[in-house]
Amino acid sequence: MQIKTPQTITSKQFLEIRLQTETICNGLKPEDTAIQPIDYVSPPKWHLAHTTWFFEQFVLSEFKDNYKVFHPDFGYYFNSYYNSIGDRVVRADRGLMTRPALSEVLTYRAYVNTQLAQLLDKGVSKKIERIIEIGLQHEQQHQELLIYDIKYIFGHQPSFPQLEYHINLIPETDKHNFIKIAEGVYEIGHKGDNFCWDNELGRHKTYIHNFEISNRLVTNKEYIEFIDSGGYKDFNLWHADGWDFIQKNNLTCPMYWHNVDGKWMYYTLQGFKDVDENLPVNHVSFYEAFAFAQFKGMRLPTEFEWEVAASQFNYGQLWEWTNSAYLPYPNYSKPDGAIGEYNGKFMINTMVLRGSSVATAHNHSRLTYRNFFNPEMRWQFSGIRLVK
Amino acid sequence: MQIKTPQTITSKQFLEIRLQTETICNGLKPEDTAIQPIDYVSPPKWHLAHTTWFFEQFVLSEFKDNYKVFHPDFGYYFNSYYNSIGDRVVRADRGLMTRPALSEVLTYRAYVNTQLAQLLDKGVSKKIERIIEIGLQHEQQHQELLIYDIKYIFGHQPSFPQLEYHINLIPETDKHNFIKIAEGVYEIGHKGDNFCWDNELGRHKTYIHNFEISNRLVTNKEYIEFIDSGGYKDFNLWHADGWDFIQKNNLTCPMYWHNVDGKWMYYTLQGFKDVDENLPVNHVSFYEAFAFAQFKGMRLPTEFEWEVAASQFNYGQLWEWTNSAYLPYPNYSKPDGAIGEYNGKFMINTMVLRGSSVATAHNHSRLTYRNFFNPEMRWQFSGIRLVK
Amino acid sequence: MQIKTPQTITSKQFLEIRLQTETICNGLKPEDTAIQPIDYVSPPKWHLAHTTWFFEQFVLSEFKDNYKVFHPDFGYYFNSYYNSIGDRVVRADRGLMTRPALSEVLTYRAYVNTQLAQLLDKGVSKKIERIIEIGLQHEQQHQELLIYDIKYIFGHQPSFPQLEYHINLIPETDKHNFIKIAEGVYEIGHKGDNFCWDNELGRHKTYIHNFEISNRLVTNKEYIEFIDSGGYKDFNLWHADGWDFIQKNNLTCPMYWHNVDGKWMYYTLQGFKDVDENLPVNHVSFYEAFAFAQFKGMRLPTEFEWEVAASQFNYGQLWEWTNSAYLPYPNYSKPDGAIGEYNGKFMINTMVLRGSSVATAHNHSRLTYRNFFNPEMRWQFSGIRLVK
Amino acid sequence: MQIKTPQTITSKQFLEIRLQTETICNGLKPEDTAIQPIDYVSPPKWHLAHTTWFFEQFVLSEFKDNYKVFHPDFGYYFNSYYNSIGDRVVRADRGLMTRPALSEVLTYRAYVNTQLAQLLDKGVSKKIERIIEIGLQHEQQHQELLIYDIKYIFGHQPSFPQLEYHINLIPETDKHNFIKIAEGVYEIGHKGDNFCWDNELGRHKTYIHNFEISNRLVTNKEYIEFIDSGGYKDFNLWHADGWDFIQKNNLTCPMYWHNVDGKWMYYTLQGFKDVDENLPVNHVSFYEAFAFAQFKGMRLPTEFEWEVAASQFNYGQLWEWTNSAYLPYPNYSKPDGAIGEYNGKFMINTMVLRGSSVATAHNHSRLTYRNFFNPEMRWQFSGIRLVK
Repeated sequence: MQIKTPQTITSKQFLEIRLQTETICNGLKPEDTAIQPIDYVSPPKWHLAHTTWFFEQFVLSEFKDNYKVFHPDFGYYFNSYYNSIGDRVVRADRGLMTRPALSEVLTYRAYVNTQLAQLLDKGVSKKIERIIEIGLQHEQQHQELLIYDIKYIFGHQPSFPQLEYHINLIPETDKHNFIKIAEGVYEIGHKGDNFCWDNELGRHKTYIHNFEISNRLVTNKEYIEFIDSGGYKDFNLWHADGWDFIQKNNLTCPMYWHNVDGKWMYYTLQGFKDVDENLPVNHVSFYEAFAFAQFKGMRLPTEFEWEVAASQFNYGQLWEWTNSAYLPYPNYSKPDGAIGEYNGKFMINTMVLRGSSVATAHNHSRLTYRNFFNPEMRWQFSGIRLVK
Repeated sequence: MQIKTPQTITSKQFLEIRLQTETICNGLKPEDTAIQPIDYVSPPKWHLAHTTWFFEQFVLSEFKDNYKVFHPDFGYYFNSYYNSIGDRVVRADRGLMTRPALSEVLTYRAYVNTQLAQLLDKGVSKKIERIIEIGLQHEQQHQELLIYDIKYIFGHQPSFPQLEYHINLIPETDKHNFIKIAEGVYEIGHKGDNFCWDNELGRHKTYIHNFEISNRLVTNKEYIEFIDSGGYKDFNLWHADGWDFIQKNNLTCPMYWHNVDGKWMYYTLQGFKDVDENLPVNHVSFYEAFAFAQFKGMRLPTEFEWEVAASQFNYGQLWEWTNSAYLPYPNYSKPDGAIGEYNGKFMINTMVLRGSSVATAHNHSRLTYRNFFNPEMRWQFSGIRLVK
Repeated sequence: MQIKTPQTITSKQFLEIRLQTETICNGLKPEDTAIQPIDYVSPPKWHLAHTTWFFEQFVLSEFKDNYKVFHPDFGYYFNSYYNSIGDRVVRADRGLMTRPALSEVLTYRAYVNTQLAQLLDKGVSKKIERIIEIGLQHEQQHQELLIYDIKYIFGHQPSFPQLEYHINLIPETDKHNFIKIAEGVYEIGHKGDNFCWDNELGRHKTYIHNFEISNRLVTNKEYIEFIDSGGYKDFNLWHADGWDFIQKNNLTCPMYWHNVDGKWMYYTLQGFKDVDENLPVNHVSFYEAFAFAQFKGMRLPTEFEWEVAASQFNYGQLWEWTNSAYLPYPNYSKPDGAIGEYNGKFMINTMVLRGSSVATAHNHSRLTYRNFFNPEMRWQFSGIRLVK
Repeated sequence: MQIKTPQTITSKQFLEIRLQTETICNGLKPEDTAIQPIDYVSPPKWHLAHTTWFFEQFVLSEFKDNYKVFHPDFGYYFNSYYNSIGDRVVRADRGLMTRPALSEVLTYRAYVNTQLAQLLDKGVSKKIERIIEIGLQHEQQHQELLIYDIKYIFGHQPSFPQLEYHINLIPETDKHNFIKIAEGVYEIGHKGDNFCWDNELGRHKTYIHNFEISNRLVTNKEYIEFIDSGGYKDFNLWHADGWDFIQKNNLTCPMYWHNVDGKWMYYTLQGFKDVDENLPVNHVSFYEAFAFAQFKGMRLPTEFEWEVAASQFNYGQLWEWTNSAYLPYPNYSKPDGAIGEYNGKFMINTMVLRGSSVATAHNHSRLTYRNFFNPEMRWQFSGIRLVK
């Protein structure tokens, strides 16, 4: 993997990023951290342990002299999808492991943090530093997933608990207009020496046609108009698979929305509230984003259009669905070894999202970042930007 | 319901039974009490709350002056299957409720215990006392279910935790023989004034034919012979549904058994161990019990044969599968109201088990007790007694 | 199997019964005979072949000198559930076999009929005659299943085709009253030398309590009252499994019923018609029969009550659900070999129906006959008789 | 839809194309035409009727004076997925309709053919001619689907029937080499006045990077090497979804292949045979095509690369999987009305195949044709061409 890590990582930086994970979990009860309410939501306790295992497996066990693993079975428990490393608890069974308990997982984190900080303080080779950088980027990705998963856990129980850690969307108040981009050959993909994932590399030319892109995200107010106009009942607006998806699941609104006596309310991490019409609509699937665009007589941008235009508008509230399938760039090749399993094997049946969200870790975003989800996923922080 | 409760219940007796539930849960981590690994296993935390809700709903709210419910939503959260009482969290979603946390549930128990004890100390009418008696019997049933559910939770995770509370089977060492029972008309069903469930009532005559019944349960040694003789591979021994069941689930041994390098081991609440050949075989489905009997050229008793013969042998280690479907006795009628939903509505697709088990609460057994499970269930403490 | 066949079977009798199967299929298109719309409905073409295979496999191949099988692969194609005979096409895949075509199956029937008639004309041993008798009884059972399956195929397509072969229910016009049966020991099970199945044998004493049984079946008029009174919406009337069953399948009426602009209509083998209020209600599951009885404050008879009382009322329009699980009689033992797979292995999860129906073959009924189906099955001709 | 139909269609041309559908079905038994063995395979009888309904619905009923529909219900029976037209038999229920029988469907075809031929002979407007052209293109697409579906029906029953109509692959005997294509801006999409589908329109520029593409398809011999080298057991070669797909379905070879005593055999429409090593490998999913390319250290072409390079090699034996998701071209817009449902709504979760196959109708192929299937589909005629 041609990932670049020009700066030296200090133990302070390492610990700062690591402790952010604990900060997100502030106020969680041990019970909250143990359950897996649906296969794609992992127990928070598992995130806490799995990100730690990454450093133990790929750094400490390989490069620290006389390193003693915290527990001989944790490798088996907390490997996620790295088939190369050997057996592992299958994803759907993460919620069966009530043990190790949260307290033991937190001890595991402290143990590995200390050992890793010692290693950094002694100084490490560029090669090791690169792996640590990947581990920290991986940690930050799990920080965002943690927020999605906690929201799912809290938002699917009758008492609607709140999260202490605060995450807030802000109103989309910019005056609405469309930015014009001229046809031509553009360069796409990461450049420079900063960190990026393998899937962003291979900067290459692409031909873009004329288009105009909205300077802001679709709001809840606009989305309610779509609902009220019968958007969920008009199959002409939907992909065939999208129509099946909403029929089968009886969907009539974004995830976390409830119609209470004719009024739209939703669960937020700060509690159950009236839908705020000025905020950008969140928790929509690709299918819903596409249907909304059809309804407006517009479309979603491709990821290439997005990358070309993004420096001309504000982003960062919600990941933005594009109409691009997640596919390799020209000359992409999967890195060798376990770390190579990270991105390439998901390049089918997923659509690209660009930008970042209020749940994204600090500094964990860039113009060329390619996020991706299956078109029916809705638990992530995802919104809509239109192109005409 | 014609349930008899001749004795006066004291607050001391009440608390003793109630605290036994906490005792069973000794040493559980909060995480252990929150998950629902499969639809028929409830989170231990749910048992703790649901049994408490019973006293709050049916006693305190109805009969205690100025009683203030502990929490207004707990009725909705912890109703189990009493459709008559109104909305409730569906069974399969019990594992979504991480809140109230274990600590709050324990406070709920203490609050209700105190209130109920006060009520008892003041003296209650026979009618109220009957409901409390039912509540305590219900508590004791959940004490046994708790043990099943904890065993399932601990037995399905890679670290195989142990339970502090001790439950032990003892070897079936009685010299093996068969007890002969003579043909004739016998009386079946509860008599006397002690507590019993509605399904035991309607003492009635039944005609029993000559039979001989084993004085002891089938042991692990005998069951291993069945396995080694290809018992799980010979469809002639099985019901059609039983054969489908073991094929579909790839079953080759009782629940909790693992073949480790050719040796049979199993998870017990005291850890993962070699199978003890002298103990009675446990955790078999009705299908397996039936197939084993076919293999031996014998059969299972009917529940009537069992009731007639049981005073002549020892029982109480494991619930014993009978070849009787769980059906109403002559003149059975479902009691009115919510409590009437308790037994009658399960009188289809279930088979009767008789006796009791080492997981059964003290004094919670009698000759006429009718337990029942679907023929494929295996997580309960169930064994085999043969008839020829 | 201690089945008795006192009379000598002539080739004329044999052919008469066999040709009745073709008569039922009169007017079917080849396409009608090929499909399997749901796993429990077999293609009519398969019934025609399977019943023929029975005679080829168990009689001609075993006992006719120099018999040449019609086609070497038909044994594999048309074995039904006789695991003892070897590999077979699994039940759910019967609808994949468009070949052999109907015309070839009819040739197969003619070939085997001729060969078998020759054998009978030459004279056969008692042992062979017994197997032929079983084959003919088996043929008659399939004649009834054929009618159920054709009705399902015709009743689940938009053009609602009619069957040429006529089957008619008649109004239940007897003045309604209840027949009293006195308590005591009665004998149950087959006696005499006529043919019966193994599951009727072992005539034995049983103790019956006082009861009163209706002299006629429940009518469509009465059943519509149940529907109109909200019977399908009141969980108190239903078994827990029955309630789940009707919820999951959105059931609000018997199979083949449709509410057309507020009027109840149904598919019959003579076309789509208004429901005739005076006819007995047909195509109800055990769950619906039970709930209807609860609604009336009565109950279903046990199969023993039914057998004791049946000589005192008319039956034969519809099989009558009893509240007895299908279980072995005392001293029942499964016959050896393939024929032994016939009944015993279904003695779980099924309920007994008694009597017979207008779809039952001529002479294929008797007081002791035990039919059985899973409690949710509705495609068979099944009605309701009440006990109080 | 900007579809171009420059030539005048004669009734002779119309009938020629229509009768080809009957020719493909030569020798089918009525039973073969009635079943739907899996949801994505339609009964051949349904194809025969549905393609006819298209002409009746969109041409005769709209434009022929005094046209009398053949049967008033056929519109409901044989609409496929045109939600705009109203109710329809859901796709999975096509196999329930044994009626109309094959003979009636053939009469329907003759009736509509005659009426349509009359209309053509009288002369029609350009607008009508366009719709007829679409109907004929649609007919030809169903001709290919018919072959896939018949092969599925015949290939999934134990007697492996043969199809009279002959379809043959020929050996890939061209000397193997790779064709180099130079980087630059290329034009993609249909040009000229001939017929094309809406999804090919919007000819536009795209930037292509240097690549080399194989001059021939992957052969069975090469694919067997992949199998023998453990290709189906090495997760590193597969997408995550692909790996799950082959695990869940226990796949170890292409569809229709069977390992008989260590030798690879397959069902072809000319019977069950040894795999011919020189023929191109057929019936692979996108997942398998991708994994094979990974195994060879190469990759699949994008659809744009394919279109640019295709004039330099032979194609037409098998549709060729590309690594392009099926997405709209720039400025694509869905045509209005029912015909607009044809392509756009499938632009998610599908991958593009290019070229054509030996099952494709004569003249029904062109460089810009975009076929598409879900990545797990294998019943279509699909092969592999590599890029390095």
